[in-house]
Amino acid sequence: MTFTPTDYLPYDFANRRHIGPSPEEMDAMLDVVGAKDLDALIDDTLPPQIRAKAPLDFGKPKSERELLHHMKEVAGKNKVLVSLIGQGYHGTVTPPAIQRNIFENPAWYTAYTPYQPEISQGRLEALLNFQTMVSDLTGLEIANASLLDEATACAEAMTMAQRVAKSKAPAFFVDENCHPQNINVMRTRAEPLGIELIIGDPDDLDAEAVFGAIFQYPGTHGRLRDFTPQMQALHAAKAVGVIAADPLSLTLFKEPGAMGADIAVGSTQRFGVPVGYGGPHAAYMATKQAYARNMPGRIVGVSIDAHGNRAYRLALQTREQHIRREKATSNVCTAQALLAVMAGFYAVFHGPKGLRAIAERIHRKTARLAEGLKQAGFDPRPVTFFDTVTVEVGDKQREIMDRAVANGVNLRKVGEDRIGISLDERTRSETIEAVWAAFGIDRKDKDYTPHYSVPDKLIRTSDYLTHPVFHMNRAETEMMRYMRRLADRDLALDRAMIPLGSCTMKLNSAAEMMPVSWDEFALLHPYVPKDQAKGYTQMIDDLSAKLCDITGYDAISMQPNSGAQGEYAGLLSIAGYHRARGEEHRNICLIPMSAHGTNPASAQMVGWKVVPIKSADNGDIDLDDFRAKAEQHADNLAACMITYPSTHGVFEETVTEVCKITHDAGGQVYIDGANMNAMVGLSRPGDLGGDVSHLNLHKTFCIPHGGGGPGMGPIGVKAHLIEHLPGDPVEGEGAVSAAAFGSPSLLPISWAYCLMMGGEGLTQATRVAILNANYIAKRLEGAFDVLYKGPSGRVAHECIIDTRPFADSANVTVDDIAKRLVDCGFHAPTMSWPVAGTLMIEPTESETKAELDRFCDAMLAIRAEIAEIEDGKIDDKNNPLKNAPHTMEDLVKDWDRPYSRETGCFPPGAFRVDKYWPPVNRVDNVWGDRNLTCTCPPMEDYAEAAE
Amino acid sequence: MTFTPTDYLPYDFANRRHIGPSPEEMDAMLDVVGAKDLDALIDDTLPPQIRAKAPLDFGKPKSERELLHHMKEVAGKNKVLVSLIGQGYHGTVTPPAIQRNIFENPAWYTAYTPYQPEISQGRLEALLNFQTMVSDLTGLEIANASLLDEATACAEAMTMAQRVAKSKAPAFFVDENCHPQNINVMRTRAEPLGIELIIGDPDDLDAEAVFGAIFQYPGTHGRLRDFTPQMQALHAAKAVGVIAADPLSLTLFKEPGAMGADIAVGSTQRFGVPVGYGGPHAAYMATKQAYARNMPGRIVGVSIDAHGNRAYRLALQTREQHIRREKATSNVCTAQALLAVMAGFYAVFHGPKGLRAIAERIHRKTARLAEGLKQAGFDPRPVTFFDTVTVEVGDKQREIMDRAVANGVNLRKVGEDRIGISLDERTRSETIEAVWAAFGIDRKDKDYTPHYSVPDKLIRTSDYLTHPVFHMNRAETEMMRYMRRLADRDLALDRAMIPLGSCTMKLNSAAEMMPVSWDEFALLHPYVPKDQAKGYTQMIDDLSAKLCDITGYDAISMQPNSGAQGEYAGLLSIAGYHRARGEEHRNICLIPMSAHGTNPASAQMVGWKVVPIKSADNGDIDLDDFRAKAEQHADNLAACMITYPSTHGVFEETVTEVCKITHDAGGQVYIDGANMNAMVGLSRPGDLGGDVSHLNLHKTFCIPHGGGGPGMGPIGVKAHLIEHLPGDPVEGEGAVSAAAFGSPSLLPISWAYCLMMGGEGLTQATRVAILNANYIAKRLEGAFDVLYKGPSGRVAHECIIDTRPFADSANVTVDDIAKRLVDCGFHAPTMSWPVAGTLMIEPTESETKAELDRFCDAMLAIRAEIAEIEDGKIDDKNNPLKNAPHTMEDLVKDWDRPYSRETGCFPPGAFRVDKYWPPVNRVDNVWGDRNLTCTCPPMEDYAEAAE
Repeated sequence: MTFTPTDYLPYDFANRRHIGPSPEEMDAMLDVVGAKDLDALIDDTLPPQIRAKAPLDFGKPKSERELLHHMKEVAGKNKVLVSLIGQGYHGTVTPPAIQRNIFENPAWYTAYTPYQPEISQGRLEALLNFQTMVSDLTGLEIANASLLDEATACAEAMTMAQRVAKSKAPAFFVDENCHPQNINVMRTRAEPLGIELIIGDPDDLDAEAVFGAIFQYPGTHGRLRDFTPQMQALHAAKAVGVIAADPLSLTLFKEPGAMGADIAVGSTQRFGVPVGYGGPHAAYMATKQAYARNMPGRIVGVSIDAHGNRAYRLALQTREQHIRREKATSNVCTAQALLAVMAGFYAVFHGPKGLRAIAERIHRKTARLAEGLKQAGFDPRPVTFFDTVTVEVGDKQREIMDRAVANGVNLRKVGEDRIGISLDERTRSETIEAVWAAFGIDRKDKDYTPHYSVPDKLIRTSDYLTHPVFHMNRAETEMMRYMRRLADRDLALDRAMIPLGSCTMKLNSAAEMMPVSWDEFALLHPYVPKDQAKGYTQMIDDLSAKLCDITGYDAISMQPNSGAQGEYAGLLSIAGYHRARGEEHRNICLIPMSAHGTNPASAQMVGWKVVPIKSADNGDIDLDDFRAKAEQHADNLAACMITYPSTHGVFEETVTEVCKITHDAGGQVYIDGANMNAMVGLSRPGDLGGDVSHLNLHKTFCIPHGGGGPGMGPIGVKAHLIEHLPGDPVEGEGAVSAAAFGSPSLLPISWAYCLMMGGEGLTQATRVAILNANYIAKRLEGAFDVLYKGPSGRVAHECIIDTRPFADSANVTVDDIAKRLVDCGFHAPTMSWPVAGTLMIEPTESETKAELDRFCDAMLAIRAEIAEIEDGKIDDKNNPLKNAPHTMEDLVKDWDRPYSRETGCFPPGAFRVDKYWPPVNRVDNVWGDRNLTCTCPPMEDYAEAAE
Repeated sequence: MTFTPTDYLPYDFANRRHIGPSPEEMDAMLDVVGAKDLDALIDDTLPPQIRAKAPLDFGKPKSERELLHHMKEVAGKNKVLVSLIGQGYHGTVTPPAIQRNIFENPAWYTAYTPYQPEISQGRLEALLNFQTMVSDLTGLEIANASLLDEATACAEAMTMAQRVAKSKAPAFFVDENCHPQNINVMRTRAEPLGIELIIGDPDDLDAEAVFGAIFQYPGTHGRLRDFTPQMQALHAAKAVGVIAADPLSLTLFKEPGAMGADIAVGSTQRFGVPVGYGGPHAAYMATKQAYARNMPGRIVGVSIDAHGNRAYRLALQTREQHIRREKATSNVCTAQALLAVMAGFYAVFHGPKGLRAIAERIHRKTARLAEGLKQAGFDPRPVTFFDTVTVEVGDKQREIMDRAVANGVNLRKVGEDRIGISLDERTRSETIEAVWAAFGIDRKDKDYTPHYSVPDKLIRTSDYLTHPVFHMNRAETEMMRYMRRLADRDLALDRAMIPLGSCTMKLNSAAEMMPVSWDEFALLHPYVPKDQAKGYTQMIDDLSAKLCDITGYDAISMQPNSGAQGEYAGLLSIAGYHRARGEEHRNICLIPMSAHGTNPASAQMVGWKVVPIKSADNGDIDLDDFRAKAEQHADNLAACMITYPSTHGVFEETVTEVCKITHDAGGQVYIDGANMNAMVGLSRPGDLGGDVSHLNLHKTFCIPHGGGGPGMGPIGVKAHLIEHLPGDPVEGEGAVSAAAFGSPSLLPISWAYCLMMGGEGLTQATRVAILNANYIAKRLEGAFDVLYKGPSGRVAHECIIDTRPFADSANVTVDDIAKRLVDCGFHAPTMSWPVAGTLMIEPTESETKAELDRFCDAMLAIRAEIAEIEDGKIDDKNNPLKNAPHTMEDLVKDWDRPYSRETGCFPPGAFRVDKYWPPVNRVDNVWGDRNLTCTCPPMEDYAEAAE
């Protein structure tokens, strides 16, 4: 017998691994859906005029083994030197226990944003630890749960200052010692909002002329100075003071709050998060309690559950852009939850004494480095520093820097005749000696403290991290168990489907995740010389080329760090285009009412006026209204922003018409890429008429959600917009992020996905995503009304079901259904968006038929419970829906409910042995917002937990 | 202000991370214990005459960062070539999802052997999958849950054959085509047992002359042949036939069962477990149902719980050495559970079609390789192969092999004029071309199947892996969730203390674990040229030197793969020593009655007679009895085997006397290292008079238990025994394992532990281990009798509490207490060993005071429950102890117990929100053994689970 090759694709090919339903399951599902085969279903669903002309062809897909082999080769082209460039990015040591148990643990990284607090208590607690840490270190009362990066945090602080300042002065002062990328991003943000930036020496601040000011602490070249006088002057002028501070330095030096700052921002990267060629890491913002409601980003707060027990949840959600829409002044949506969790745990691991010891060690090393330079005749500045000094070297700059590189060290080029050096937690004696050697100094580093001191008035005198969580027993056994306990309280993709409409919670495969941990990707400073980042360049170029193929655009910018950032960057490029053509008066943006809230918020941020477009009864854009508004505003039309397929989950046939109308009126077309998972391989926004789109790599391209970030929102543009893409944050103009490629250390995930799936696999994923959504729609049909189908009765990759009728018929709200799903072991679908009182369900291609059935069984059982209420068989106030979710505490207590424990706790869908128990009952949001607490609650909670 | 260095040791130093109690906690504990300070406690506990003379000094301990930096440097000295050496070790691809979710997940690797089935259902299911896989692939009815490696499995098969054969012939036939290391280890095992080995061509088998025979399939040089005629001949002679088979080849070729084999053994390494320079991997053994009770190793079986639900547990435990003691014929204890779990999951991931596809691809590649060689004039043999061919090359052997190495490929040197080549799952076309190039052939590898075939009679015709678990939906999402569900069913160190006496379940830190995953350690074939393993050599040399310092011995052999293997190897070295001195008649071994059951079993394995020594009332060795027996057997005394501190947890003051008596009578002293965690840095077995000891690196030196292996049991010996240590498995004699250094890829863990702790830290760990044990003893005092203290009332690193009185007073057994501890969220201590009706508790230094208190609170509450029974307040048959453990199903059902749900499910110690729920009620062991099922139960179980 001879063994000839068969067509069986082994398991290690992604196509089969990534896609949930097996071929046999797909056949069964197609039967239910009533389609002959997958082709027929797709033909039903996608109008012919929007179909891509040619199939995606990325060559032969790679197996996991080939992928990792290839990745290793490419990674090897990055040269991992020791970077002492500083400028906001520092070497740090990720505690291995955090790396293993959080960063590489799907229980943490596959979680969604904690909108459903009952299944998110673990990461909410971890984020509250982060907020408490930030609040303590900055000396300000309230902190948010992270922002995208320090530069955007500076920009957010600027616009927040404008919102809260009583001063109506038009300008904002920027310390010339701010990191260049911070200034760049603030400049980008200020321009369309009409804010004048005054960049200068803090000593020259004219407080009367500004509504606010920002100072860097320590300054980009290392100087530590006290900004108390500036804060006093600003307050006298009713203006707002912002300090961008390195949080590690705050363990030793006077904190922003003590100087009188109103807002503090910065990056927590050096709290255990690798630099990663620029990201992701968590930026922070803290402010005074009085400004809590003006703070951008998400805030975790403390509230109570239905039984009065302490429970965490997102606070003050009414501030968010999806509520405020065009009145929003920030479009922050995705943040950096996973990285904030890591930074918070870094503080828990080290505690105040440990963090202080780390800072002191770095400081002493820097003092020794400076001493060595001084004794050799150099004049390192400033005199008062934390970890950074800058040295005047005349015409020796190139020579010294080259010698440093030859010794394995990157230094910072400052101007043409200075060199900056920033030390960090990773700096070894060998590194200091290598720096000296580059300066021509032959000297050995010994552990001593030179005669050197910081003025007393700059020394921190207040306590920090006093909460018990930062004084836990720090034995690794205890830490490991704490991380596990928190992880176990949450429900993430590693246990169940998360059927969130528009959020595409698909598989984040282990093979895709692995390279992110590799030193060659993790340890590159964002501002290393290009020739040290050839692996990154190759990856970014190839991934960009593939994304161009997928979208039909001509170029990609990887800079935006989130979908909302991508929208903003895309609109900026359109604005730049109009300006370049002398049409900068164009400032009208047409946006359908059904759009995601970030759309109008982003338009507002580029200074445009939003004109809403009605939806037709079937959920589509009302074409007449659209045409009328476009004509009405033709002279000033800047753009339209549409989502495709629509947020109602339908491939609208009129999309090309919408684009044509816009173009005819002189506008540009922004197509939101939130729903690209329904398009890849089948339809290209660039072909439909789009001029620019963003892609959520954390949705469609497998970057995990991390419990609310990281994300990546690169944009694709047509050729005419290329020159208006964001510039380099350090060397260019118009940057939207601190790093040129946003959060590039995540890109191996998306690239690996494309390489392992191949063009055919990616297309099949899209087709199966559509099949899965139609399967759910069909199974729920009859029990629930499925809203918004296409002409042939098909939905796209998600479906919306109507729960409004149950309010009257059974006193059941969409919230009741969502919470009841927790009892069934599911995260709820997207609630009340884009239509109030509905649930939007997106299963993605990664869910198996068994999991879809488990979900449908749960939904149908819930519908039966509603029917029992409708029929008067059970009480409409005391029933499994109203009391959901049920906890273990309910079960152990006396049971006085009109239904059984079994009914309450084990509805269809719920696993038995593997039952997920929410740690709290239904959380009271109103109570929490009325009694706002956004730092760790007092000790007794921990005593309770330990009971 | 100047920042001068403080004495605060940052968190990243292991001493503080590894040791549970904080300094403040230790003070509080010393108060309870009634000791002035730790020194005073240690002085109370350890008799002065046994104290080490000098402190351990390993230089400055390394931080995690420095450790990983150093490890990377050392790892870099290993050269990772592609090894096509074969000989039982093959390249394999570990599916990334398995690597991340099992191999690198503490929920799996920190688990203990599943002796407590109620908290082990997850790994028991995984091991049952492994057994089913082995049973299916080999075509035999029953398989065990792994053995140490293929070579020891062959030796076990040989002795098992002798046990079960009706033939009383004295010899065992060994196929000359067996791997050399298999022959070597069988030879070592056969010699002391008086088994004559006949090594020859299978065609020359004289079945009448042997009690059994073993054949390698495929043979070590690649030949596939049908052993049916040999099996028939053996059976006719009432002898037993064994086949050592590569399980991957069995997906294509006729299985041992179909040939009539009685026993099959082999290695499952190539099922996703990296070669790791020799180990660890799981060997397997399968046999006919009739021989189930004669099979060595652990077997997972199916039984029912107290409510009649299906439950898994270890079957037929009465076969094990700890019961049979000197009547045992195998000392297998630790096996390779974690690796068996991985191999089982590899089969679940790929399923039968996938495994077959992998095997076919390898086979086709080999055929193409052979074709290329043939066309170039070489004559690759055999004609009928799976993945290995051997080529006659005359005097070109060195030249071709060197050229291959230069091309990045290791080939196998066979004799002086042949070269062996084995392909595997990792083989890429480039590799095949590199081999051809080494042979001087310039040829490109193309994917085709040459004219080549295997005789039909060798083709497998039976089905395998038909059970539904091997036909699950193989989407990664589903697989990830399956792994998570199983992990969640178990209780491991990542959730709670495992206070097992004599098993030292301490922290396995993340930093220690990380290097094990590195390619430089994972991908080295055990038989690569030494100059490719310089990193391993450096590590092994340095770790050996440190272990010599710790133990007071002169040399270490890393070869034994488990503690029991270490005992065996140690006794072999003593036997070798006696033989070399012409005293091979010495065959008496004195062993205290309290010894671990592996001691007498090991003595039996080297052909000695065990003479038991009584214990005195205080648990110590009865010195008079010892002296009397030593004198009585002086002429023939081979050795004594003692454990120090004793298995009763006491530092016996007489140990030096025992050693002296033994030496005076001409014997050698074996000191069992099971309790080294009470000695490191304080006392050295070599100083006490020991001639040889084994060290359980998986206990004292932080290698995780893996749910029942891997382990490492290196032995330390005095200088006079060095020449009698195990030889190289391929080039030497007297090997006990297939690889020279046992399971070397685990050694980074122990080495990292030593480097991060330093001598002082290791000593402190020992001191705190003693403190923790004394703290528990003190807290439980009064409620329970603490047996066996030292003269000053102290215990060593563990304590034994007496539960026998409760049998009469309250009808409560040690089992009831153990199961009630599950309700409290704890793994039970060691039960009924070394004394029936007792619990032996070893907390280790890694547990914090809070966790110790949680445990003591639980124990005291249990004592109070017992008191209530004693007082007649609760029924002695229906109470929380008898009904323990309680499951969620109990809680949800009607509750007709005379105590509350709260009392039943949340006794003191139990977490509330983070409660651990056992998936089953108390498991019925007797039922399971009476109704033996050791493969996956039928489908309906899965339907139930999915409910």
